[in-house]
Amino acid sequence: MEQNDCTCIPATEINNRIKKIQKKLQQTDIGGLIILQRVDLLYFSGTAQNGFLYIPVTGEALLMIKRYHPRALNESCLKHIIEIRSVKELPERIQDVYGSIPRTIGFELDVLPVNEFNFYKTLFPDCFLVDGSGLILETRMIKSAWEMEQMGQVAALSHKTFEFMKLEIRPGLSEMEFAAMAEAFSRKNGHGGKMRVRDFQTEGYAWHVLSGKNSAMLGVLDSPASGAGTSPAFPCGAGWKQLEKNEPILVDFASILNGYHMDETRMFAMGAMPRKALDTSRAAIDIHNAILEKLTPGMTAHEIFEYGLSVAQRAGYQDSYLGPAGYKTSFVGHGIGMELVEQPVLAKGKHVRLEPGMTFALEPKLVVENEFMVGVESVFQVTETGTRLISTVPIEIFMC
Amino acid sequence: MEQNDCTCIPATEINNRIKKIQKKLQQTDIGGLIILQRVDLLYFSGTAQNGFLYIPVTGEALLMIKRYHPRALNESCLKHIIEIRSVKELPERIQDVYGSIPRTIGFELDVLPVNEFNFYKTLFPDCFLVDGSGLILETRMIKSAWEMEQMGQVAALSHKTFEFMKLEIRPGLSEMEFAAMAEAFSRKNGHGGKMRVRDFQTEGYAWHVLSGKNSAMLGVLDSPASGAGTSPAFPCGAGWKQLEKNEPILVDFASILNGYHMDETRMFAMGAMPRKALDTSRAAIDIHNAILEKLTPGMTAHEIFEYGLSVAQRAGYQDSYLGPAGYKTSFVGHGIGMELVEQPVLAKGKHVRLEPGMTFALEPKLVVENEFMVGVESVFQVTETGTRLISTVPIEIFMC
Repeated sequence: MEQNDCTCIPATEINNRIKKIQKKLQQTDIGGLIILQRVDLLYFSGTAQNGFLYIPVTGEALLMIKRYHPRALNESCLKHIIEIRSVKELPERIQDVYGSIPRTIGFELDVLPVNEFNFYKTLFPDCFLVDGSGLILETRMIKSAWEMEQMGQVAALSHKTFEFMKLEIRPGLSEMEFAAMAEAFSRKNGHGGKMRVRDFQTEGYAWHVLSGKNSAMLGVLDSPASGAGTSPAFPCGAGWKQLEKNEPILVDFASILNGYHMDETRMFAMGAMPRKALDTSRAAIDIHNAILEKLTPGMTAHEIFEYGLSVAQRAGYQDSYLGPAGYKTSFVGHGIGMELVEQPVLAKGKHVRLEPGMTFALEPKLVVENEFMVGVESVFQVTETGTRLISTVPIEIFMC
Repeated sequence: MEQNDCTCIPATEINNRIKKIQKKLQQTDIGGLIILQRVDLLYFSGTAQNGFLYIPVTGEALLMIKRYHPRALNESCLKHIIEIRSVKELPERIQDVYGSIPRTIGFELDVLPVNEFNFYKTLFPDCFLVDGSGLILETRMIKSAWEMEQMGQVAALSHKTFEFMKLEIRPGLSEMEFAAMAEAFSRKNGHGGKMRVRDFQTEGYAWHVLSGKNSAMLGVLDSPASGAGTSPAFPCGAGWKQLEKNEPILVDFASILNGYHMDETRMFAMGAMPRKALDTSRAAIDIHNAILEKLTPGMTAHEIFEYGLSVAQRAGYQDSYLGPAGYKTSFVGHGIGMELVEQPVLAKGKHVRLEPGMTFALEPKLVVENEFMVGVESVFQVTETGTRLISTVPIEIFMC
């Protein structure tokens, strides 16, 4: 496993994360958390092996690994890592180590299916099993300096991939073929291939390449437009339409490296872009930049959403901004990190205050029905005084 | 959407599926099913747009689409397709169309997270919300002739991809680079990119390319071995090790076309394969073929699992068969169709009887610790009298 060692999460990082969530736990009546979702487990333990992490309200955490214990030992810096054969051992193991089982246990009820939850209720018949996912997601919202380095590394990979796309785009490639070429290049260079999305109904994928009229196709996604997709079975993202000269091509490409995501959108055109699409693409960039300049810690997600809307209105783009009337999305950006979509969301009605260390993908997109969707997306960090781009791909329209 | 029209699910197909599940519903106290998981929705309605399908115990189904109604109309042959703005409209819409809301409603409780379920309980305060997923999965187990055609098409794509791999494999490519090249080729030719897996903890991916010693690395997967993966964040499947001459290379590649999956494994070697790995690879093929010959409708999944085990024992491979002692998997195959892993599983202790129309990926794999994993995997159908391969890739070892 020599190739993996340098990518392990450092001990100080893991310890800080556990301390942070324990502090939150202390303000509730939850006596301990049982974490099993893969990304949460990785975040708090450093390993994504098959297992369960118990975080008590104070003291050391206990990592119980079903498969595969030697790798978990190698990957995780936690002190207490034991091997179990079955999930049924959980109550006994917790009892053994801590002397008792807390009255109230937090589980990830935002992802745990009902049938599995019912099983856990039989395992802990004397306990209240409550939702601990809010505390977990809150903890994950604020990224450390080490996490910012990770985000910087995946940003560099994404940059390299966009450079590749600029060189390799050509008329006649299908949207999917072009997307697959870019992904193959990126995977050769470190892209892990698998996007991680928390919501069980959202299917994360890297290949959101939408060209010409196809880009304006509304669809299943909670996004200004969805594109054609490859069939009714997967009716979004890249499809079989061939890329053509002189049409707007929206490339929304997602990357993952060592567990951290990047999500960037740029407009491409081969030859020229029709004037209306070009102007609208520039408007998207202006709105994007205006939001980045305006945003300071202490503002709420709702306020920044409303600000973006006001900029679009002043520029005369209220009709197309975030989709056509009746189908506008209610967000202009989303948290990003170990999942492609994280909390908080820069959305209407979300009154969470923006804090230093939060990272967002900001994606103003505009849809002119039956004509095109254009937009731009970059990833930034909230700093003490404003924002700082993590993305390094130039914020411009790529004429190839 | 002209490129999609020919890939729509025919009306007779949808009607039969709904009739089948209604027959099952009639043997329960469930008065109607609310289907929302993407694949189940596609299976029973023909569209994967964002919406909800209500299937009453008798009569026409009602498809309620949040986004995007015009595409759902185009993709689904159902008679009653309406647009809704919010999930909160469900009770009223069902009441409007059917005159009442059943006392007991089935939901997909194997995938529905607890927090969402709690929301649905507030929507239907006077109803019992019970698990309908068993009926859904049972219905989906038996594939129609039309589905067999779909499986045949994805098998042809997989065959083409394995031919590409035979031509393009070369020393010095990393496992991930080779896997990504194959996937890019396949996606150019129709592969939809996104594997669908039902279990929220299982991360479906196409790129299970494991070479030399790496192939014997146990890990997170409920599979004889997991491989290196790209980092602790994704510790399974292809990694950064370079493919070498004269080593066993296991390629377990998954495809999806128009919503149907294929899952095939072949051993590759460039130059020669070491004798022990070669003999063990042949043993895997022998076990695979013996199971295919033995299997007839009426046998149970458990019986066929035990039969495979007995063949492996007689051949002297009991130590390595399905993994090393203490870490053996308890299944030798799994259902496959619109999800990569479906019911039933050919597993120890599963007493479900095999029926004509079931389709399985059969994957005997053998692990010699610290040395290699070898195996073979093909997809077959249970017929009236035995089995028929859907896979067309030759069942042999590829020496390149």
